[in-house]
Amino acid sequence: GNKAGDTVELVGSCQDLFVIVSSVEDKDQSHSEKRKVFEENLREEDLQLKEEIRNNLRCVKIDITLEVCKIYADFLQLRMPMKQTNLNLLGDLGAQKQPPLSAVYNKDKEYLFDVTENSFSNAIKCRIIDFILRRTRFEPKDGSDLSFGIDSLLDDGTYVAAYPVHEEEVLDQWIEQWKLCSCSGLRSLYDHETLDALRNYFGEKIALYFAWLGFYTMMLIPAAVVGILCLIYPLATLSKHKPSQDICNADNVTMCPLCDTCDVWPLNETCVHSKISYVIDNPATLFFALFMAFWGALFQEMWKRYSASLIHHWGLTGVSLEEQPPRPQYLAMLSDDVPQHKDPVSGRLEPRPDWWSIKLPRILASISTIILLFLVAVTAVISVIIYRMSVRAALALSIDESWKVSILTSMSAAFLNLIILFILNKIYDFLAEKMTEIELHRTQKEFEDSLALKLYILKFVNYYTSIFYIAFFKGAFIGAPDDYNRLFGYRVEECPPGGCLLELTMQLAIIMVGKQILNNFQEIVLPWMYRRWRQWRSINDESGQQGPRWLKDYFRVHFGTKGLFDEYLEMILQYGFVTIFVSSFPMAPLFALINNVIEFHLDSEKLLTLFRRPVAVQDTGIGIWFNIITSIGSLSVLSNAFIIAFTSTFIPELVYTAIGGTGNLDGFVNSTLSVFNVTDYSAGQQSHIQQNIELCRYPGYRFPPNGDDNEYKLRPIFWHILMARLAFVIVFQNVVWLVIKIITLAIPDVPEKLQLEIRQERYMANSLILKHEQDR
Amino acid sequence: GNKAGDTVELVGSCQDLFVIVSSVEDKDQSHSEKRKVFEENLREEDLQLKEEIRNNLRCVKIDITLEVCKIYADFLQLRMPMKQTNLNLLGDLGAQKQPPLSAVYNKDKEYLFDVTENSFSNAIKCRIIDFILRRTRFEPKDGSDLSFGIDSLLDDGTYVAAYPVHEEEVLDQWIEQWKLCSCSGLRSLYDHETLDALRNYFGEKIALYFAWLGFYTMMLIPAAVVGILCLIYPLATLSKHKPSQDICNADNVTMCPLCDTCDVWPLNETCVHSKISYVIDNPATLFFALFMAFWGALFQEMWKRYSASLIHHWGLTGVSLEEQPPRPQYLAMLSDDVPQHKDPVSGRLEPRPDWWSIKLPRILASISTIILLFLVAVTAVISVIIYRMSVRAALALSIDESWKVSILTSMSAAFLNLIILFILNKIYDFLAEKMTEIELHRTQKEFEDSLALKLYILKFVNYYTSIFYIAFFKGAFIGAPDDYNRLFGYRVEECPPGGCLLELTMQLAIIMVGKQILNNFQEIVLPWMYRRWRQWRSINDESGQQGPRWLKDYFRVHFGTKGLFDEYLEMILQYGFVTIFVSSFPMAPLFALINNVIEFHLDSEKLLTLFRRPVAVQDTGIGIWFNIITSIGSLSVLSNAFIIAFTSTFIPELVYTAIGGTGNLDGFVNSTLSVFNVTDYSAGQQSHIQQNIELCRYPGYRFPPNGDDNEYKLRPIFWHILMARLAFVIVFQNVVWLVIKIITLAIPDVPEKLQLEIRQERYMANSLILKHEQDR
Repeated sequence: GNKAGDTVELVGSCQDLFVIVSSVEDKDQSHSEKRKVFEENLREEDLQLKEEIRNNLRCVKIDITLEVCKIYADFLQLRMPMKQTNLNLLGDLGAQKQPPLSAVYNKDKEYLFDVTENSFSNAIKCRIIDFILRRTRFEPKDGSDLSFGIDSLLDDGTYVAAYPVHEEEVLDQWIEQWKLCSCSGLRSLYDHETLDALRNYFGEKIALYFAWLGFYTMMLIPAAVVGILCLIYPLATLSKHKPSQDICNADNVTMCPLCDTCDVWPLNETCVHSKISYVIDNPATLFFALFMAFWGALFQEMWKRYSASLIHHWGLTGVSLEEQPPRPQYLAMLSDDVPQHKDPVSGRLEPRPDWWSIKLPRILASISTIILLFLVAVTAVISVIIYRMSVRAALALSIDESWKVSILTSMSAAFLNLIILFILNKIYDFLAEKMTEIELHRTQKEFEDSLALKLYILKFVNYYTSIFYIAFFKGAFIGAPDDYNRLFGYRVEECPPGGCLLELTMQLAIIMVGKQILNNFQEIVLPWMYRRWRQWRSINDESGQQGPRWLKDYFRVHFGTKGLFDEYLEMILQYGFVTIFVSSFPMAPLFALINNVIEFHLDSEKLLTLFRRPVAVQDTGIGIWFNIITSIGSLSVLSNAFIIAFTSTFIPELVYTAIGGTGNLDGFVNSTLSVFNVTDYSAGQQSHIQQNIELCRYPGYRFPPNGDDNEYKLRPIFWHILMARLAFVIVFQNVVWLVIKIITLAIPDVPEKLQLEIRQERYMANSLILKHEQDR
Repeated sequence: GNKAGDTVELVGSCQDLFVIVSSVEDKDQSHSEKRKVFEENLREEDLQLKEEIRNNLRCVKIDITLEVCKIYADFLQLRMPMKQTNLNLLGDLGAQKQPPLSAVYNKDKEYLFDVTENSFSNAIKCRIIDFILRRTRFEPKDGSDLSFGIDSLLDDGTYVAAYPVHEEEVLDQWIEQWKLCSCSGLRSLYDHETLDALRNYFGEKIALYFAWLGFYTMMLIPAAVVGILCLIYPLATLSKHKPSQDICNADNVTMCPLCDTCDVWPLNETCVHSKISYVIDNPATLFFALFMAFWGALFQEMWKRYSASLIHHWGLTGVSLEEQPPRPQYLAMLSDDVPQHKDPVSGRLEPRPDWWSIKLPRILASISTIILLFLVAVTAVISVIIYRMSVRAALALSIDESWKVSILTSMSAAFLNLIILFILNKIYDFLAEKMTEIELHRTQKEFEDSLALKLYILKFVNYYTSIFYIAFFKGAFIGAPDDYNRLFGYRVEECPPGGCLLELTMQLAIIMVGKQILNNFQEIVLPWMYRRWRQWRSINDESGQQGPRWLKDYFRVHFGTKGLFDEYLEMILQYGFVTIFVSSFPMAPLFALINNVIEFHLDSEKLLTLFRRPVAVQDTGIGIWFNIITSIGSLSVLSNAFIIAFTSTFIPELVYTAIGGTGNLDGFVNSTLSVFNVTDYSAGQQSHIQQNIELCRYPGYRFPPNGDDNEYKLRPIFWHILMARLAFVIVFQNVVWLVIKIITLAIPDVPEKLQLEIRQERYMANSLILKHEQDR
């Protein structure tokens, strides 16, 4: 290799590119020895090192030559631009292609390429430096096989930090661009120019997150518009809606008590409720559910196309990601008695845990914990339900007005629910990471995928259990007044005559909007607190805002390995709200849209003002998150089918219109209410009934008290409706899946134009090589 | 390039490798000119040409040098073995890998490779020659841009044939190996050695067919075994089956007439029928349906793994298939007024049809034809149904014994059905190819994929419509005796008390086994006829069995471009029988297994004794057939759910056991039969009833003739059963899909060992390059 003293071609201006920082006062003698060997080895690799001491910190600045860049460009299979002159060999062929042709760089075919210092962005240079830092040994040749890599040196305190240095002017430009006008910032995510800049500065992984966020937000716009239209339709037709009119005009319909200690109540008390219910539960709901199912399928397909074109634009098509080293935590957790094996890929000695005796018990422990946490979430929801049932019964004894009882019960229960949710979320965050750590994943990617799946399932259960309860179980198994179904002695909850859909909507709105507000609040408050702390600190310490860029960055937060994990998780959970329950919450896309605009600004501000510059990570897609989106897609078709079939009044109204005799909804409300003889109640229940009435009504399709065998038994119409509901689920699910399948097949994963471009580039590169061979 | 006169390194023995044959007597002067230019250009490409004249045929034998092979190995991205010595650079790393390391060949990195003449099989050499033949121009430089390629020369008769020559000893060895013992031949398909030999001789595409056939046949073995077990279970428990006993002992149960001119009949006439029904329709059926659903998912996953390991073994992982030239038929169909465009990939001038004005009308015409043919198939089935209904009514007038009527009706209808099926199939074969031709597909691959999809859908409809009718529609909408549903005046067909499952099984057996026998018969008779014709011909002509190998091959059948298309189609249709209706035909896997053993021998014999040697076609998978298999998988879950829910007696028995009171099947048959008062029949119907009875029974859940409102109305149990059936479909479908999804996720597409191997090879190749760079 070149000797350190040779004159070397330096890449770019002599700027600070990457620094490794250590403390000047060393407690441990071995540290300075390790540093010496490490830095000597770095020079061996032809890196340029420069020392600077400030604020008791010893900083080694690292720069890289074009020659080293080229070697690693070959090794890391980077695409590089090809020479323009060469293209003339092919005649017209070269001329018709506008952007410069690029190919995977090959040092032996250098005559084909046009590699200058501009071909390597600072992000790539930092990536190459980071790659070298991770592979360089810090002990003499006879030392341990595992004594290599900057990560180990950071862990044992030999160095205190290693990071690429921010570029002040780029940073300022972005802060300017994205702060002023919120709209142009987000829209800019959709053009290749901004994404290219992001990629050149932060690397593909972070650029892909912003690309995804921009894409998702754009896709939300049509969904939000259709969602609003599906709210306007019922508002316009509200005055013509017969069932809600019937409820409001029902002056003399007395409903049976809602709990064991409750009184009877007049039906028209639910007048407003029934009107609001219609706004959510109307024929447009079915349309919107269908629309969103196809929207979801389109989302997946369009994202595949969009990311394929982005990845090709970045020259990463067909590039396999380089080998990932084992996580330091993984190596640390494996004690010395674990037998060392040669890693079959790199050939280095590395502890390899036995699958049966070490990994399996840990995986089982992890799975059991997840199941336990799952049960905890379900138990929490059940206890809230029991709380609600018991409070309703207790309050009814002391408060006469039933609406006050309802509000007090609902509000306190919702508050309780939110607290439990928050506490469980914190526990989940903590335990999921611990459990994933225990599972001994070798690489960061495996670790992140496992953690993502785990956290998603847990948060899914946490957020959605209460929603599933309201959507599918509440009011479904109440029994008849002569024999109520009971849970711990309390009557199970009932739905009002309009169905539970309104309550479902309210629950969804509280959880989704509440979660977003809480989340954004955290993201606003935490940076603010950090800035205050930094200001306070800068008074005591002279570092502050002065000093070179690397010193300013040193006082920033380390970006860490988890990267944008939490941001993805929040977004995907939000995507669940937008699709899984969309038929009961048409405003969800709108709320998501608003949130994403805020989210984008918070995320970008965090990245630009709070964190050190991350090392560019190469990535060719959003990984396991896309698999989760696909699963959500399948689930959402089923859940929306069930919501429309069982939670909404769509099917009962349809059956009534078809076989009810009148051909319209006249008398529909009456048909859904059965009659009960108050004297058939137990003495305890009767004592709470103040009014002097004989018959009360309750929701259900049962025979009236006529004294024969059928009394309070289910009427045939109940079975007709149930059958229609089940048939609807089968038809909806299979028809939608068929259409989605056709959509998926009809839209190629890679745009045709792009396919042609890829084929063309391959063909031209091959032709060039062939031409060259023949000319030799 | 090398001049034709230079001494050149010849590859292999001086054997006949590839020949292009033309007639000695030329009618057209331009032909010999074209030949001259063409053969001169071939010599320019450094190919070795040798002339031989025999039987009025001028044969040009083509051989290829190692140097040319190497150039095209680079160009076609072939994997070549790497030098063993180089591996020592990496120390232990090289030693632990047993098979020789290979990498995509790169002529500039020749120092890494160990390429000798043995590295190129004859198949690859033929492929390279074929590739050159397809790109070589046959007119002087100033001629048309499209005057290139052997295909055009074959089309206009300049040459009469171009084919690789068979290798006599290899051919004989295979005929020997595969003819003697049927078992070892098929089993050998599952080991890599035989497949490698096949691949080296015939190329990947044909080897993949045999690999798929072997894999499929192996997978059928467990399915056939479980299928047989699922037949043994009911045979063992037949004596304990209450419903069939009840039917056999029902001496005094009179059933209502089955057609307008039929008489009443005793229930125990269906004694044998009910016993046989039980053999197919029993609790084991549900188990078998579940088993086969998971088997199907496993089939897909295992095939992905198996083909991935095969493709890697052949060094094709990550290799992109070379550009395909436009089909000659495509170029011929485009008249001269179609504007010429530059092909964006190769840069050659080529007619490109406008999408809106030329392609769209043709695609629409094609789709309309398919829909028309679809309707024809459905109409054909409906006419058979009407035929059956009318013949039954007509025969009942003249024949007294109802079993004779049944047999005559069924047999003549089945025969009619088979004839229609056969005729339609021929029409479909013809029209599908015509339609696909009209759609103007540019490449052979696009053409084949479109044809495959079209033919599969048409044959699917043709084979399966009558089966779908029996499974889901027959007996489902008969109405009640007081008001039968009618089609063209005839009563719609009924199912016997045991349900239609037995008839479904019989129909399946007839179509599946009949189709296979017919198909195999064709494949045996056609080669035999061809051989007889050849023998007869060889008496007149002196060519016959004498002469060089190329002359013998000349008299064989041209393999054509369609390749093994029909074989795939037959197999995939058979796969449909094995999965879509498996719950009503547990013997299907066994029949398929037997058929495949025969099929394998017929296919291999055809390939070895009937056809010229095909040019090796590179392929990395079975293409669109795999997509069709995936779709069949989804469909089969749904169809089996419906068969068990609606066609079998599983759900009614379950509901009866649960809420019938006795907790077992005592009285189940009685519960499925409703009572009808004969005097309620029309006078015409009554005149055909010879017995003097008052009440008759019919299958259905209706109220007896008790004179009140409910008379002949559906009883609640009907709704309970219907609800249970629909609920079963939802649960079955979603649970099975969930499990399949988990299976799919749990089994990686590429075996872990193979992934490691691929990563290892990549890493080692990279390390080698890096090491070399540093040593320079």
